[in-house]
Amino acid sequence: MYKIEHIGIAVKKLSASIPLFEKLLNTACYKTEVVESEQVSTAFFKKGESKIELLEGYTPDSVINKFIEKRGEGIHHIAFETNDIEAEIKRLTKEGFTLITEKPKEGADNKMVCFLHPKDTNGVLVELVTEKRL
Amino acid sequence: MYKIEHIGIAVKKLSASIPLFEKLLNTACYKTEVVESEQVSTAFFKKGESKIELLEGYTPDSVINKFIEKRGEGIHHIAFETNDIEAEIKRLTKEGFTLITEKPKEGADNKMVCFLHPKDTNGVLVELVTEKRL
Repeated sequence: MYKIEHIGIAVKKLSASIPLFEKLLNTACYKTEVVESEQVSTAFFKKGESKIELLEGYTPDSVINKFIEKRGEGIHHIAFETNDIEAEIKRLTKEGFTLITEKPKEGADNKMVCFLHPKDTNGVLVELVTEKRL
Repeated sequence: MYKIEHIGIAVKKLSASIPLFEKLLNTACYKTEVVESEQVSTAFFKKGESKIELLEGYTPDSVINKFIEKRGEGIHHIAFETNDIEAEIKRLTKEGFTLITEKPKEGADNKMVCFLHPKDTNGVLVELVTEKRL
């Protein structure tokens, strides 16, 4: 992992949070996208080499709505970019970290992603992301 | 604000979390620093143009220990770098955001910093940082 790819922020309503974060970050939302596998709608903002990703769950079962129910809106995860997600998974597993899903899966923004279990990382939900290969 | 300067992570014990994050991020901690005004000890890691900052409160009254008591260890804040913190404060105040402290104060890593109130930012504690001018 060589940089912060994005910070994921759980929000209740994208319709309210997109204009809010446009004001906060002083930049326009450049993309919205639905990720069906996670039951979330997302909105992206660029800051330097990283992105801010707002996440709204569109079903009560979405992990985002469960997170908000428990902890309120706020920072949900931090994602690091890697060029070789399989090698990075191997390295981290060897170091004793646990994956939430065994294999990388499709994420937003044309990426393959996987998550590390926050019990191993001081409560921080860490995502690994890599460009999807065609 | 033009990039993510750092992500702040609240931890109970730096002595345990520094080696953990060295493994996770695959990079050595390059600096530790005590910030007396916040009653915290900090440890820094570099990833791309951003940093990961671990924070341990060294008094029970530290905001970090209060945060951990309430929510557990985890991501505490996100800091954006700006070249002109006074102009950025003026812009954000005009947009309706509230500052926790009225004036920038000294932070870790030779910076001047201020925080926005998370009630205005979907529960996200946002810090503005700028290089301290000599």
